[in-house]
Amino acid sequence: MSTLGITGGRVLLPDLSIREADVLADRDTGRIADVGDGLGGEADETLDADGSLVVPGLVNTHCHAAMTLLRGYADDKPLDAWLQEDIWPVEGAFDPEDVRAGARLGSVEMIRNGVTSVGDMYFHVPEVVAAFEEVGLRARVGHGIVTVGKDEADARADFEEGLAVARELDGTADGRIRTALMPHSLTTVDHELLETYVDRARDEGIPLHYHANETEDEVAPIVQERGVRPLEFADDLGMLESVDFIAHGVHTDGTEIELLADREVGVAHCPASNMKLASGIAPVQKMLDAGVTVGIGTDGPASNNDLDVFDEVRDAAMVGKLEAEDASAVAAPDVVNAATERGAEILGFDAGRIEEGALADFAVIDLDAPHLTPENDLVSHLAYAVRGSDVRHTVVGGEVLMEDREVRTLEVDPVRREASRHANEAIGRASE
Amino acid sequence: MSTLGITGGRVLLPDLSIREADVLADRDTGRIADVGDGLGGEADETLDADGSLVVPGLVNTHCHAAMTLLRGYADDKPLDAWLQEDIWPVEGAFDPEDVRAGARLGSVEMIRNGVTSVGDMYFHVPEVVAAFEEVGLRARVGHGIVTVGKDEADARADFEEGLAVARELDGTADGRIRTALMPHSLTTVDHELLETYVDRARDEGIPLHYHANETEDEVAPIVQERGVRPLEFADDLGMLESVDFIAHGVHTDGTEIELLADREVGVAHCPASNMKLASGIAPVQKMLDAGVTVGIGTDGPASNNDLDVFDEVRDAAMVGKLEAEDASAVAAPDVVNAATERGAEILGFDAGRIEEGALADFAVIDLDAPHLTPENDLVSHLAYAVRGSDVRHTVVGGEVLMEDREVRTLEVDPVRREASRHANEAIGRASE
Repeated sequence: MSTLGITGGRVLLPDLSIREADVLADRDTGRIADVGDGLGGEADETLDADGSLVVPGLVNTHCHAAMTLLRGYADDKPLDAWLQEDIWPVEGAFDPEDVRAGARLGSVEMIRNGVTSVGDMYFHVPEVVAAFEEVGLRARVGHGIVTVGKDEADARADFEEGLAVARELDGTADGRIRTALMPHSLTTVDHELLETYVDRARDEGIPLHYHANETEDEVAPIVQERGVRPLEFADDLGMLESVDFIAHGVHTDGTEIELLADREVGVAHCPASNMKLASGIAPVQKMLDAGVTVGIGTDGPASNNDLDVFDEVRDAAMVGKLEAEDASAVAAPDVVNAATERGAEILGFDAGRIEEGALADFAVIDLDAPHLTPENDLVSHLAYAVRGSDVRHTVVGGEVLMEDREVRTLEVDPVRREASRHANEAIGRASE
Repeated sequence: MSTLGITGGRVLLPDLSIREADVLADRDTGRIADVGDGLGGEADETLDADGSLVVPGLVNTHCHAAMTLLRGYADDKPLDAWLQEDIWPVEGAFDPEDVRAGARLGSVEMIRNGVTSVGDMYFHVPEVVAAFEEVGLRARVGHGIVTVGKDEADARADFEEGLAVARELDGTADGRIRTALMPHSLTTVDHELLETYVDRARDEGIPLHYHANETEDEVAPIVQERGVRPLEFADDLGMLESVDFIAHGVHTDGTEIELLADREVGVAHCPASNMKLASGIAPVQKMLDAGVTVGIGTDGPASNNDLDVFDEVRDAAMVGKLEAEDASAVAAPDVVNAATERGAEILGFDAGRIEEGALADFAVIDLDAPHLTPENDLVSHLAYAVRGSDVRHTVVGGEVLMEDREVRTLEVDPVRREASRHANEAIGRASE
């Protein structure tokens, strides 16, 4: 077998204990072959982890990576106005090449922040997949279906595209790319078509991912029209299977939290986006108490404004305490787990933990820094003090995507220039 | 005159517009001599700012820098239990050398994050001042006076130390170090002594800085005992002069906000600490609407857990929107101003803006990065996407403290080793 050794560092184990150990990855299977002492000598390639902490690669459970093009384009506006006045008009002007350029930039950014898996909802999805494949990320992708304002034929066509994307792109890049049917939200798609296509997705074993309960404005119409909470309605439609995951879940009540726990549906918690759009704070401690699987998402970079999951980890712990009015809520181990093992569970990847047999996805963090000194508690540091720029190496399936902050799979400067050009052109077209 | 030129970059001007320009600093006065084109050739030393943005050095208006030693030592606990069970016992074991080591580490960390001025409250203050002087920071410092649990003589002695520190250390380091009388808070000092020493401080022209309205537990006892809100009580004591500034102000009502505005008392807003200790969210938009001067503070690194003011800038915008339930609240320009010009006003330094005559304090930010691409809006990037690790150069009074991320004034590795040793020893002594 072809192997990668990560040697000389300390390793974060699944129980969040830390030991000095090498890690050996089998590149043929993409999985961890061994965790132990003196494994470096056996490896075909080694990565130095001296003075560093090897952690599972971070999982960004909810993203729209191509929206890097709109970073900083429209800030400080509420969700509805922001989408309708700023974001959707420019997105409407995006051609496939724009999306490709944005997704490549987002991919580079994520790799530099130690992200190894991402859940991504967008359009022109083959372009997004091409970017993820090229750069080496693992991803669960789908076409964001929106039918509001469309006639019946166009609405159906959008669902068809969602289904076709889920069917045809699944398994791309040696299985690193998986898919889902991704209706945008319960308030932006036609409910009859939704019911039809959820059934078709179920017949084909395709999971679902959608925005749910992000704002009060997404809750009230469902309650008014259907007489039940949105996630009860989703359950009636068969949209709460254990393979499914929702984004946000900000405005979820106790009944809905019980449903999420009972149906084993994961939540992609996006604290920064929920703050920036003033959507509110998801009741994460209540979800954890109920046994809901909570992961961490950046959401799109236009409402964040970056793709640094370490920022979100800190945000999740911080606002989780505010929401619970309890400084012991959403503690450091909770958010570190959310960004790793729980996130991988949500996306359906056998990753997020460093043990033999798991997928060999890693972020190697340089501890040799003033802001990570002294080492009173490294799990605390991961939650509160590490930032994406502390990541030295990023590895997916035993393949090195970044070594000592040099991205290996793409040239960063051309990606940046190309993205800037596409951003300017698309924004220009939108304002014509 | 001896001069420093910062050349080839773009400059953030006081109105938050951006222009291509060089900046020339006069090291004899420590002030900006000129902002314009082609100034590099005149300078005795030049810093390259190609592809970079020159911004005013960040102002950290409320800190306890030596608490770097306790970074990650006790997380996820509410303020009172955290102070009484964890923090104060170890601080009680700190000797002057511990404080020096912690302050040196904090100083290095701040410089690496582009911080040029800091408001710092601690004990063994001559050690803190020595660290700031050595590393080259500008600071407003004071001895944190706590009398709760002390007998009359010890309580008086603590106030005397507070006054002596304010008197004797003022003007240190060619005037870079200024002082204040720093009673810890209205609920942790004896009120009769407070009245006496506030009068003495006023007689000597010494400003005040104290924690105010950080938690509900700081508000209720004053309301119960005095029948007025804490800041009304502070006003009665003569503690709201325009040279004074408070930290936190989380639980302030409309009357108190009007008082702060009317008395021109600044607020050091510490969003991360207020979230992490579940203290609440300060009503920053209401303060801004009322005309209160709001700056940004990290608070101590044990409740943060780092000294990256860019984190706080982002946090301030984020939670400001949550508190106001309005995504347009506490917008990017507001928080960028808070971390620069407003912060300098609060600390009483003629800094925080890049124009001729102002103090020559700068952070030079490397824009050549995926997470700062495309450049749709650089003020947005400063608020939402820049992180401390993007700072290339840090300059105070025309002196280069860091160039291309190499700290010039201290050797980082020995500072880190020394701090780790002191942390371990002090924590060991506290648990004996």
